[in-house]
Amino acid sequence: MDLNSFLTSLGTSFIIFVVLMLLFSWLSSKPSNNVVYYPNRILKGLEPCEGPRSRNPFTWIREAVTSTEADVISMSGVDTAVYFVFLSTVLGILVLSGLVLLPALVPVAATDDSVGLTQTTGNGNFSSLEKLSMGNVKAKSPRLWAFVIGTYWVSFVTLYMLWKAYKHVSELRAAALMAPHVKPEQFAILVRDIPPVSEGQTRKEQVDSYFKMIHPDTFYRSMVVTDNKEVNKIWEELEGYRKKLARAEAIFAESKTTGKPEGTRPTNRVGFLGLIGKKVDTINYCNEKINELIPKLESEQKLTLKEKQQAAAIVFFNRRLAAASAAQSLHAQMLDTWTVTEAPEPRQVIWSNLKMKFYDRQIRQDIVYVIVALTIFFYMIPIGFISALTTLKNLRKLLPFLKPIVNQNAIKTVLEAYLPQIALIVFLALLPKFLLILSKAEGIPSESHAVRAASGKYFYFTVLNVFIGVTVGGTLFQTFKDIEKHPNNIVSLLGTGLPGNATFFLTFVALKFFVGYGLELSRLVPLVMYHLKRRFLCKTEAELKEAWAPGDLGYATRVPSDMLIIIIVLCYSVIAPIIIPFGVLYFGLGWLILRNQALKVYVPSYESYGRMWPHVHSRILAALIIYQITMLGYFAVKKFFYTPILIPLPVLSLMFGFVCSKKFYKSFQSTPLEVACRELKETPNMESIFRAYIPPCLSSDKVDDGEQFEDALSTQVSRTGSFV
Amino acid sequence: MDLNSFLTSLGTSFIIFVVLMLLFSWLSSKPSNNVVYYPNRILKGLEPCEGPRSRNPFTWIREAVTSTEADVISMSGVDTAVYFVFLSTVLGILVLSGLVLLPALVPVAATDDSVGLTQTTGNGNFSSLEKLSMGNVKAKSPRLWAFVIGTYWVSFVTLYMLWKAYKHVSELRAAALMAPHVKPEQFAILVRDIPPVSEGQTRKEQVDSYFKMIHPDTFYRSMVVTDNKEVNKIWEELEGYRKKLARAEAIFAESKTTGKPEGTRPTNRVGFLGLIGKKVDTINYCNEKINELIPKLESEQKLTLKEKQQAAAIVFFNRRLAAASAAQSLHAQMLDTWTVTEAPEPRQVIWSNLKMKFYDRQIRQDIVYVIVALTIFFYMIPIGFISALTTLKNLRKLLPFLKPIVNQNAIKTVLEAYLPQIALIVFLALLPKFLLILSKAEGIPSESHAVRAASGKYFYFTVLNVFIGVTVGGTLFQTFKDIEKHPNNIVSLLGTGLPGNATFFLTFVALKFFVGYGLELSRLVPLVMYHLKRRFLCKTEAELKEAWAPGDLGYATRVPSDMLIIIIVLCYSVIAPIIIPFGVLYFGLGWLILRNQALKVYVPSYESYGRMWPHVHSRILAALIIYQITMLGYFAVKKFFYTPILIPLPVLSLMFGFVCSKKFYKSFQSTPLEVACRELKETPNMESIFRAYIPPCLSSDKVDDGEQFEDALSTQVSRTGSFV
Repeated sequence: MDLNSFLTSLGTSFIIFVVLMLLFSWLSSKPSNNVVYYPNRILKGLEPCEGPRSRNPFTWIREAVTSTEADVISMSGVDTAVYFVFLSTVLGILVLSGLVLLPALVPVAATDDSVGLTQTTGNGNFSSLEKLSMGNVKAKSPRLWAFVIGTYWVSFVTLYMLWKAYKHVSELRAAALMAPHVKPEQFAILVRDIPPVSEGQTRKEQVDSYFKMIHPDTFYRSMVVTDNKEVNKIWEELEGYRKKLARAEAIFAESKTTGKPEGTRPTNRVGFLGLIGKKVDTINYCNEKINELIPKLESEQKLTLKEKQQAAAIVFFNRRLAAASAAQSLHAQMLDTWTVTEAPEPRQVIWSNLKMKFYDRQIRQDIVYVIVALTIFFYMIPIGFISALTTLKNLRKLLPFLKPIVNQNAIKTVLEAYLPQIALIVFLALLPKFLLILSKAEGIPSESHAVRAASGKYFYFTVLNVFIGVTVGGTLFQTFKDIEKHPNNIVSLLGTGLPGNATFFLTFVALKFFVGYGLELSRLVPLVMYHLKRRFLCKTEAELKEAWAPGDLGYATRVPSDMLIIIIVLCYSVIAPIIIPFGVLYFGLGWLILRNQALKVYVPSYESYGRMWPHVHSRILAALIIYQITMLGYFAVKKFFYTPILIPLPVLSLMFGFVCSKKFYKSFQSTPLEVACRELKETPNMESIFRAYIPPCLSSDKVDDGEQFEDALSTQVSRTGSFV
Repeated sequence: MDLNSFLTSLGTSFIIFVVLMLLFSWLSSKPSNNVVYYPNRILKGLEPCEGPRSRNPFTWIREAVTSTEADVISMSGVDTAVYFVFLSTVLGILVLSGLVLLPALVPVAATDDSVGLTQTTGNGNFSSLEKLSMGNVKAKSPRLWAFVIGTYWVSFVTLYMLWKAYKHVSELRAAALMAPHVKPEQFAILVRDIPPVSEGQTRKEQVDSYFKMIHPDTFYRSMVVTDNKEVNKIWEELEGYRKKLARAEAIFAESKTTGKPEGTRPTNRVGFLGLIGKKVDTINYCNEKINELIPKLESEQKLTLKEKQQAAAIVFFNRRLAAASAAQSLHAQMLDTWTVTEAPEPRQVIWSNLKMKFYDRQIRQDIVYVIVALTIFFYMIPIGFISALTTLKNLRKLLPFLKPIVNQNAIKTVLEAYLPQIALIVFLALLPKFLLILSKAEGIPSESHAVRAASGKYFYFTVLNVFIGVTVGGTLFQTFKDIEKHPNNIVSLLGTGLPGNATFFLTFVALKFFVGYGLELSRLVPLVMYHLKRRFLCKTEAELKEAWAPGDLGYATRVPSDMLIIIIVLCYSVIAPIIIPFGVLYFGLGWLILRNQALKVYVPSYESYGRMWPHVHSRILAALIIYQITMLGYFAVKKFFYTPILIPLPVLSLMFGFVCSKKFYKSFQSTPLEVACRELKETPNMESIFRAYIPPCLSSDKVDDGEQFEDALSTQVSRTGSFV
């Protein structure tokens, strides 16, 4: 790829971005679009915009930049704040690296003209961009010392920023957990693998007596987990009819106002998808169905609570400290029974996973790992194929009917710039859902944990497939015979393979950030969807609200792709420092746009108090180590005599990772007592804490349902003790 | 080595053993030797022997066999009982294996005469012993199927016995920890890495306020660890003079009875080692010194408690459950501060290690690992050398002046049998102390933990040096060029190298068990030492008691050498099943003799409630995996087509290890709450629990020393709460 097509790609992307940004300014100023551009503020009961609605298209930038971390936490939670710590850490690393590397290394590389055209390893054409890179420095040159210093500088900057960030996130997490608000999950623990009930005892008695014995003063109550599949089905059916009824009534009311005062009663067919079968009056039909289902639901609820108890329970304590301490202590002598963990938030419990047994979970995990490994392996094939098709020349050869189109100059340039990137992006978009399903199948008890697990898998996939796959794949076609001879020499392979693909990745990054973030900011797709739904589908308020529900920031899929950019930028940072500004732009723009989205649009669907950070941290560190090893390889390729001077770097990174994990990691797994012992603002209402964990399909409309839960949920202990 | 020299070695060993056993029967029946043969019983205030002292030399065998595990626990503690579980587990593995392998495989091997003399890999002579081994079966023979089944049988037997044993030990440990007796260590936790004291606060206040905040109801008191080096020196000096005084007074009293009624006052010189300097009256001199040292000690004690406080403390709780729970919970947000662990027993605390900081300990551990690795590596050289000298032929060549002696037939046979083994044993005897010192330097807080760490290092040493060193070394001289060509092929190296050295190891085992256990049982060395000391040295009761103090069973050094035998026997079990009876004899005899010693002789110096077992377990499992890999290699050498049928075995072993560690391991690290919540027989006396941890050099003779400790030890909290 030459400079021309690269600049074309960059230019088009930038124009798309500017158009989208202007579109955003215009659209977001219309009050009718408020629910699309300010849903988070509306749901929190705030005014969509502070101050007068100005036509200035840069107001949102000012608002994003001036917002504090505390604003983010209050609007979007700790997890989102941690995501911004991630973005600003990476931004800091790149800015600090760039400030030194760009003015220092680019002139050193550009003025060394000794390398001829024959030595380049690019995609065929020697571009002027590559003249600014380390590839332009001749082998064994003393100029390489400058690059060695650069390598050290980037490493130290990264480690310093990571250390600062880990400390900061750790404090954020502690502050959030210390907060004097009552959070139900801080009073509960999750108990799994309860051994079989002994003769003449109910599950509830078993759990209660066990925890009363061990925690006589602090045990409050327990809730045995039940198999809610049946009852959930009935409940969902009931809810469906209720929605349908509300909709039918709204339609009926609407029909009254216009023309006919008596209105037209809506009808529907009872058969398959409402297309066939008897025609009935919808309102009557739904009322009938609802009256039919309510007793069915109640009897099923009773049956579930009585008969479908599982070997898991949520146990409540009357103090935060007691729960935090209990969640960290071994309870049973045999460790595969009575396993305890901190309870997840009520809204993110994956109920159906709680009942899974210890070894069942283990085996499922192993199977999932195998499936993921296979997926990663088999995705290699299509991606390798695409990498081979990258060049238009190949495409023309394979698909000769495209020739007349492809030969046109403008189309040719665009295609050459975008084709492989688009293929990559489509591939990557398919995956996250699949990985999340796999992660949930492992038996993980909470949504946020499943999302972290999926994110981890996605990271491996990304790195292995995109980075190494494309690099090695691209190199494969050039140096296939070399690899045949020395299959072990992966380090030198990375060293030779990477520089050649620098411009490919540069385009990839450019496309990704301009177009991706432009779409993110302008929310074109949700906007169109919302207006379509409002016009043609939504009849009731609830339906309308559902139509503009903004959803989650979705950091699980954001982090791995950001991580890919980090790896790419880090690896090229010294080889071709010109990539750093692109990285800075990507993360700077990302920070700005997502800050806006976090404050105004997205509503977090759960809170894990920054548990994502250790994963992010270790992956940035992994990126750093990949970078260091790549540099080792590249210096070796350059036949630099003092290459071993870089060996301490990966060792240092590993040591740093070890120290960080020792110092910070465990407090992300469980709550330190120092944190849990802080006093609460108010005496916790244990009853409401307990109720927070009752799944909606089991909660009854009746006020007095204490009786109903007697079977699976233990009755309240008379003395509640002192509250901390 | 031929059959002749092997039988000679075996015979001599056996005769030595019988002589030693008869000697034991005779010597132990003399009441004057009771303190040598029954010290444990005497110290526990029991009669030396139950029933009439019979002259039957086999009474001790009957007593050992009929003793129960409960007897062992009550006489010698859980750790010793766990050591017997180890012995009987291995015995069970070998007996069950032997019962199937011996009648099945020996005939299969012996009747296959097709392998000629040329193919043998022994030490030169083809012995009739090797005719009974797998080496006698020709390559690709279908007879090898029998050996495959044998390999599976041994593996399954081992896994089954290990599972049973782990479960049993886990129950033993739980039972001991549940026992209703008050154990000070169950009420305390060890806190290390306390952060620097803030301005205007003493260390004691800092610790007390921190734990009062977190555990308001259960915190009892704390004891800040002090640097006792100085005070300990003075205390030891004082104790020395007290002993000397008692001795001088005894000598003086003795001199009175004989002849002169006024007696002779003993004198000594004050200079170097009592050899030079002024001659003084010992009694007066000692009294003077003691009176001089007592105030010095007291002022130093005060100084130590006030000024030499360290960043570590022992914190006491008024319930077992609270201590067990606190020891398992994270306390501080930053994990390298306020690290908590279960407190070791008072008698095994290594005070000087407690003050070491978190990263200091980590760095020390790394350095120690490097030193151990270097030791293992450099010991390879002399052992390899010995292995080369093994054959007398070489010896004659190298040391020609030995020729006349060596050529005599009897000496030749004995030398040939023993020479290499003795060299090995001497080498191995040098090491344990060195490793223990290294382990203590890691900053481990308790003796038992240090001993376990040393034992682990010794195991690596043993396996790497003796087993692989000798095997590979022995093979080295035969197939040096083969290894040069294929240095990676360690599996096939094990396969070819092992069988050739079978008889060498057989002799090693025989020598070890007959002579070693004979000496153990007869206690000849302690007996002679005791009688010499009694006659010539001991003057006071205390000195006499010191002279017969039996010491510890010392499982730290026993386990690694037993483990070596296990590896050897397991590895040869299928290749040469004839080794199994020797293994059975070794462990059977060991069980019998050590049972006698545990019940009557040794006094455990600490109790870790079976914490050794997980280490032992994983090492037996490692031995099993080494065996399985060896078999894979050996079948491959035999060109057996279905060799891959053995690949599931090591995989299975690894999975088994994983399941065991998940199910049992963590309850060996910390006390499960289920165990700690059992009720006590009596209300614990917290004052005496606290006092148990005061090191002797800091405890004062005065009754009312509560005042004195005020500086470093927190005052008692007024309310003691309820006791569990």
